[in-house]
Parts: sequence; structure tokens; C-alpha cells
Amino acid sequence: MVLSLTEAARPAPKKSVALSGVVAGRTALSSVGGAELRYRGYDVVDLATACEFEEVAHLLIYGALPTAAELADYKARLKAARGLPEAVRRALESLPASAHPMDVLRSGVSALGCVLPEPLRSNPRGATDVADKLLASMGSMLTYWRHFAFGGRRIEVETDDDSIGGHFLHTLRRSTPSRSEVDAMHASFVVYAEHEFNASTFTARSIAGTGADLYSCVAGAIGALGGPKHGGANEQAFIEMCRYVSEDEAEVRVRERIARKDVVMGFGHPVYVAGDPRNLVIKEVAARLVREGSPSRLFDVAERIEAVMADAKQMFPNVDWYSALVYHLLGTPQSMFTALFAMARTAGWCAHVIEQRADNKIIRPAAEYIGPGQRAFVPIAGRSPAAAEARAA
Amino acid sequence: MVLSLTEAARPAPKKSVALSGVVAGRTALSSVGGAELRYRGYDVVDLATACEFEEVAHLLIYGALPTAAELADYKARLKAARGLPEAVRRALESLPASAHPMDVLRSGVSALGCVLPEPLRSNPRGATDVADKLLASMGSMLTYWRHFAFGGRRIEVETDDDSIGGHFLHTLRRSTPSRSEVDAMHASFVVYAEHEFNASTFTARSIAGTGADLYSCVAGAIGALGGPKHGGANEQAFIEMCRYVSEDEAEVRVRERIARKDVVMGFGHPVYVAGDPRNLVIKEVAARLVREGSPSRLFDVAERIEAVMADAKQMFPNVDWYSALVYHLLGTPQSMFTALFAMARTAGWCAHVIEQRADNKIIRPAAEYIGPGQRAFVPIAGRSPAAAEARAA
Repeated sequence: MVLSLTEAARPAPKKSVALSGVVAGRTALSSVGGAELRYRGYDVVDLATACEFEEVAHLLIYGALPTAAELADYKARLKAARGLPEAVRRALESLPASAHPMDVLRSGVSALGCVLPEPLRSNPRGATDVADKLLASMGSMLTYWRHFAFGGRRIEVETDDDSIGGHFLHTLRRSTPSRSEVDAMHASFVVYAEHEFNASTFTARSIAGTGADLYSCVAGAIGALGGPKHGGANEQAFIEMCRYVSEDEAEVRVRERIARKDVVMGFGHPVYVAGDPRNLVIKEVAARLVREGSPSRLFDVAERIEAVMADAKQMFPNVDWYSALVYHLLGTPQSMFTALFAMARTAGWCAHVIEQRADNKIIRPAAEYIGPGQRAFVPIAGRSPAAAEARAA
Repeated sequence: MVLSLTEAARPAPKKSVALSGVVAGRTALSSVGGAELRYRGYDVVDLATACEFEEVAHLLIYGALPTAAELADYKARLKAARGLPEAVRRALESLPASAHPMDVLRSGVSALGCVLPEPLRSNPRGATDVADKLLASMGSMLTYWRHFAFGGRRIEVETDDDSIGGHFLHTLRRSTPSRSEVDAMHASFVVYAEHEFNASTFTARSIAGTGADLYSCVAGAIGALGGPKHGGANEQAFIEMCRYVSEDEAEVRVRERIARKDVVMGFGHPVYVAGDPRNLVIKEVAARLVREGSPSRLFDVAERIEAVMADAKQMFPNVDWYSALVYHLLGTPQSMFTALFAMARTAGWCAHVIEQRADNKIIRPAAEYIGPGQRAFVPIAGRSPAAAEARAA
């Protein structure tokens, strides 16, 4: 059944977006429109409120929400796939502490693809095995690298944690997270898991279209997600709210910045016109962590900036705004916020790659040529200096 | 000046290609149409016949064919950038001999991006510095890894070779290539350097659109190029010609395979209708190597299959057919053919990334939703087994 409402609610094409509104393929994974986001027909708010991340990853990659028995089986497989091959650990150890965690994650995924290549490129069972391995081990890559780079310690990443989010917090912080902290990871991962043909997912599908392996698709998608106009925005959002010591200072300064036409990161979204539905969920998670004892100052600042942006610009927070705060309250360094987004979105990326393979199309658009017309070749001895040539062209 | 001929000569959209014929952006780098390919207005046949690869890389990345002095300066910069940082060498040493060289190259580029990150993402000078480093050092990555993985030897990659192609052959084979061999590398690299919005280049531009660094763009593009429907085809083309011990056997077997409707790799092209202009150049390079003393058997087989395909299928060899043979005659292992393609295409990828940045657009198409309509959330206790659910959806 085709959901025509989604098409009707799609906003007008944007000039700042190439291929805006142009259909580049078909998907059964999610629909975005108005102020709604659904994964395979289910409202993301319901999923983020009631589900563990692994249930949603199963929905996206395996096609349905799992029963209790299926979820237990899936989680057992993921738990068994947490380990990093020796060669991947050596590759991660070679990367400096100054590296960005997104670059480390891209490198870890790429190295894993060298060590455990996807067995049969046309075999869908192979794709889900690799998807399981990636979802299970990307957190291991990040925390293994971090402890080695910053302290020279080779940590054990094969732990008994129940979930991907809990495993990340445990191996990062070296202490077992509370139930409430694990639930916060579940909710944030669910809202980050999937978002139709966003730039990183479309990148993954473009790579998949050539018949490339899943590691190549996910490594490429990580690269795209890291850009400041995409997933990199959650790190920028946190920098924004950290600028101010109090909500009153935030209000004054943000109003000044709005008057100067500065961009305030973490607000607005090219697809949502009436508000980002994911914001409701993730703001409540941040509020809950504060009610349970986390420091409230940044939450108060974030909420005040939200009110100022609504008042002065009629702009709403997107998913990145309170996600950044949640990751901070959970003890994650700012440089790892986008990498957490990547861990979650890997569920969507893998599902889209499987879908693109089934569609069996290479993605190859046309270009409008705006360069010089036919030119006679000039041998090297007869050329003008390049700077002058390039200006003339 | 806009070259409208190119538009007119564009073939009809293909069903096997997503976004076929849809303009996804503008480029001044190349135009493809009919049986012609031009880089910034220059015919690729002229460039491949008369130019060193570095002249063409300069044309693509810096905007003009260089004078002799500019070329000397550019080559000196590239020569100085051949070295691999210690961390990248350690990362390459960690990768097994069983890895595919394209996966190794993707991993090496990714590691380099961790060690020498692009300094200022909005700084075009930064982009060209990184482009220089990538063009200069990708060959080093491949040959360093190969000698270490297969023989435990840590080779010196900072040599005095005059060109990127010569440096690759020298460090791979540990012997200085002849002038003729270096010229063959130049010609093959020139014909592989650029090809408008092909799948890997479009991937690079999709990643660039988010504001990501050049390493992320090139790592993603390498992943896309590796797919068998894209650059991976040159390895497949070589497997094709290696199947037969003589040209007569080739003729019989290929005619049988055509009758069975098998796909013969290395023939036809989605963009060229009247023949691939690059084939003329690269076939002559292969013929010259044979005239100069290389074994002729595979050339004879390749030429006979070309004749059979023309006769039985009216299909022409694409650039991959004789490129594969050239790389083989130069002593390169088959598993490295696509990686050589990647080294050459890096010139085009980097130029496209710089162009996409100047255009300042994120690439974010729409999707046609074909999944289930709105569904009520079902708590875990009330679900049916996933297999049944997925079938029903």
C-alpha cells in the first residue's frame, strides 16, 4: 500500500539542495512528511517510547518487529559479534588520539572489511551477517581506540552487556550504566536509526548500486554523515548550548546572534515544516535524566534557546538539539556524538543497501555541462601560465 | 560557453539506471556524448596521446593544462608527498594478504585522513593540498601493503621516480620501468582520470555536499568504484580474456557464450552509443607494448573477442578491455587493476569535490514510499513471528 499522504505533505524543493524533490528510488523503510516520521508504517514516537533499539534495527533490517524470542535470539547474535579481530585492533591502535572519532569509525569499518570481507556479494544472508557484525562492533571500535589512544590501554570489548547502547557506555566509561541510562541510549538510537533518503543513506545506496560490499557502503555513509550539514550538526549544537553560563545570558546572546543573522545550529530541518517529531522524544529523555539527578544547567539553557528561537525565528529544535545534551549527560565526549548517530543510523544504512541491491539499479545521474566548448589541444611548449588560463575558462 | 551538443547526444534514459538522464548538478570538468569525451573542452584522445597524467590531473584539479614550469613545480610537489606517515604504515601492516587491494586503498585513505586531517574544510587551498597528497601517496599505500603482506618487507616508498605511474611500477616491481612502460601508465591514467557523474564520482559529490572532508569523499568513491558494475569490471574483463589459450578457442567459446546469453565483461557502455573513444587509445598502448616485445597471446585473444563481439552483438570494447591487458603486460597483478583505476580517477574525484563545494549544495533526493501505510504499534508480547510479518507487509 502506498502512503500518498507523505507525497502530499512533502515541502517544496529547496534551492540549497540538489535533487530536492526528485525521486531517486523506492523504499519501504520509512516515510517522512509534515511532522511525522514512520519506520515501515510505525510512528517513530511509539517506537522510541516503547522499544529497545535492537527491536527497531530488527524491524528495519529483517522486516518486522521481533517477538520476545526473536529479540532474544537477535541480541544473542549481536552480543557474540562484539569482538574485534586482531588486525582491526592493530589498525585502530595505529590511529592517533588527535583523530576525529568519525574518521576512526570509518577506518575501523574499512579495516574490518579487509579482514572479514562480505562472503558473497549477491547473497542477502551475507548482507545481514555483515550488518549484524557492524551494528555489534562499531561501539567496540570507538571505545577500544579511545582507551588505547588516550591511555595506552587495550580494553576487553567482549562484555556481557544486554544492548548496543549499554555496551558502548560500559566500555567507554568502564562502569555499568543504570537502567535509565541504557533506556536513554535506546531512545536516542531509535530516533537516529532511519530517515529515508538523507545524504548519508543516499550515499550508501549510490555505493550499493555498483554491487559494492556492505563495508564500502557504510564507510562511505560515515564519511557523508560526518559533514557539518548532516550528522556533524549534533556536535555543533552542543557547542552552541555550551557557550552560555545561564539561561538568561543565553537569551540575550542568542537574540543578538539572531539580529546579526548568525546560524544557530540544531534548529530547523529541510524536511519537517511543522516541527521535528523526534524532538519530543529526545527532549523528554533529557528531562528525565535531569529529574533523576543529572545537572540541570545545560538543559535550562537549551530549553531557553528553544523558546527564543520559537519566538524570534519560528524555528523548532531538530533531533540533534537535545540528543547532544543527552549524550553529554550520559558522559560521552562531544567528539563522539556524531559517531553515536552513525552507530544508530547503521541500521537504516544496512536496510537501504539490502533494498538497493534488490532493486538492482546503478545510480548514475546526468550533469549539466557548463565548461568550455571544444578546444584545440595545445602542446606543452605553447601554453600560457595556468592561472591565466583558468581565469579565462 | 555551454556545449549543447553533449545534451543532444545523450542516450535515452536506461531502466537499469536510477536517475538516468536526470541532471543532478553542474560541471565544467568533462562532457560525454556520442563517441566523444572531453576534459574541460579537450578531446581525451589528444590528451592521452600527448600528455603525462600529471598534466591532466593539473587540468582537472587546477583548471588548466600547465606550462613546462608549472608541470615541473606540480611534479616536485607530488614527489615530495609520496611518503606515508608512520601511523598509516602501521595501519597498512595490520591488513592481511587476503584483503582486496581496493579495500586496502580505502583503508589507507581513511587512515591518512585520521593522521593528516584536512586543515580547513572551507579552504580550497586545503582541498588541493589533500588532493596532491592523495594522488601522490595512493600508489605508495598499495605497494607498501603488498610487499609487507606478502613478504614482510617494509619498502621505501619515497623514491626519485618522475611520475605517479612510474613510481607505482617501480615500488611494485622493485625495478625501474622503461620509458615506454611509464608512457603506458600515463595513457591509461589519462583515459581513466575523469568521466562526469559516474557512480563513484557522484558518490564523492554526495559526500562532499554535507561539508565532509576530502578523505571521506575519496574513501567513499573507492568503495563505489570497487563494485563489479563499475570499476571492478576491469578485473572481470581480464578474467574473460584469460579463459582461452588461443584466439581460435576464444572465438568458439565466446560465440557459445553469446548463444547462451552470458554477459561478456568489458564490452558496451551505458553512455557511449557509437563506441568508447578511450578504447582507441588504450588498445594502441597494448599493441605498442606487444610490438616492443611483450607476449602477444592475450592481445590476440582480446582482439579476436573484440571482432566476435562486433560481429555477433554489435558491441564495442569499453575502456576496461585493453586497460586490463595493459596493466597485465606491465606486470601488475589482476587484483590491483581496479586500484590503478582508482589512483587515476582520484584526479576527477578531487576536482568534482572542489566543484561541489563551490556549488554549496547538499545532495538529498526524495524517495517513492512503497511500504505499509500507518500501522498501530504492537507491544512485544502481542507480536506474531517476524518471518510471517515480513511476508505479509
